[in-house]
Amino acid sequence: MKMSGGVEWALHCCVVLTSVAEPVPAARLAELHDVSPTYLAKQLQALSRAGLVHSVQGKSGGYVLSRPPATITVLDVVEAVDGPDPAFICTEIRQRGPLATPADSCLTPCPISRAMAAAESARRAALNSVSIADLAEQVELNSGAGTLNGVGTWLGADR
Amino acid sequence: MKMSGGVEWALHCCVVLTSVAEPVPAARLAELHDVSPTYLAKQLQALSRAGLVHSVQGKSGGYVLSRPPATITVLDVVEAVDGPDPAFICTEIRQRGPLATPADSCLTPCPISRAMAAAESARRAALNSVSIADLAEQVELNSGAGTLNGVGTWLGADR
Ligand code: FES
Ligand code: FES
Repeated sequence: MKMSGGVEWALHCCVVLTSVAEPVPAARLAELHDVSPTYLAKQLQALSRAGLVHSVQGKSGGYVLSRPPATITVLDVVEAVDGPDPAFICTEIRQRGPLATPADSCLTPCPISRAMAAAESARRAALNSVSIADLAEQVELNSGAGTLNGVGTWLGADR
Repeated sequence: MKMSGGVEWALHCCVVLTSVAEPVPAARLAELHDVSPTYLAKQLQALSRAGLVHSVQGKSGGYVLSRPPATITVLDVVEAVDGPDPAFICTEIRQRGPLATPADSCLTPCPISRAMAAAESARRAALNSVSIADLAEQVELNSGAGTLNGVGTWLGADR
């Protein structure tokens, strides 16, 4: 089971966007991360479709976060890029074959499906308990206060 | 992010194998589940490689669980079939580009990577808290006591 590689890029973009007040062109975000602008544009469009960032058109156009970073969770970003579907899909195996469970005895999910759903809930709850603001705070703790300010200045330069 | 569809089959096989003392041919398990024997054989081989079932050769050969069902967890089966790798792989994006974090400041994982790892741990802990014996017990609760006994009798018939 593999998550889209775009999740790592999208999360890094959201964290650096906490450092700016003005829209940042996608090309500038791509340059910061040394990644193909086309590839990054795809992730930014996914974030935009999910309403997490929005794009401002025009000469000083680009992307900004749509909401305060404390209200955007890691789960929001993961679902925007990787999709909202659970990793495990029950295909109702129990209703197959010579000893099939009759459909009217299958009104509640199969115990196996329930165990998988519980694990999915635990994963989602963990992803939902961390916000982009939390991540930005941890970056500052790890890399030193002012790190994101420096990134913000770089992102806003040469405009 | 999608888990291998084989996980559902493999878990169902493990649960029904709690109902037998004698080895069950792969073809009989495939018949019970009305699935292609080739496809099911692939899942049984993955379980076998992980040491969760073993195959007995010969006329009355087939598959049996290798360990008491209370000691086989859902996580064991998921990892056997879907692989042990975490869904999120950090590619050290922070070390790229003009503002790259120097490698010697990257001795601990990036905060983003830590958040993803915490979610993975929560998922794994949930999957590890349910055993094949627990699932068998819940099947009996759902479908009525004796359900798995009936499956065991069917699996052992016509041998
Ligand atoms: S029928 Fe889908 S998990 Fe059991
Ligand atoms: S560098 Fe990989 S998640 Fe941040």
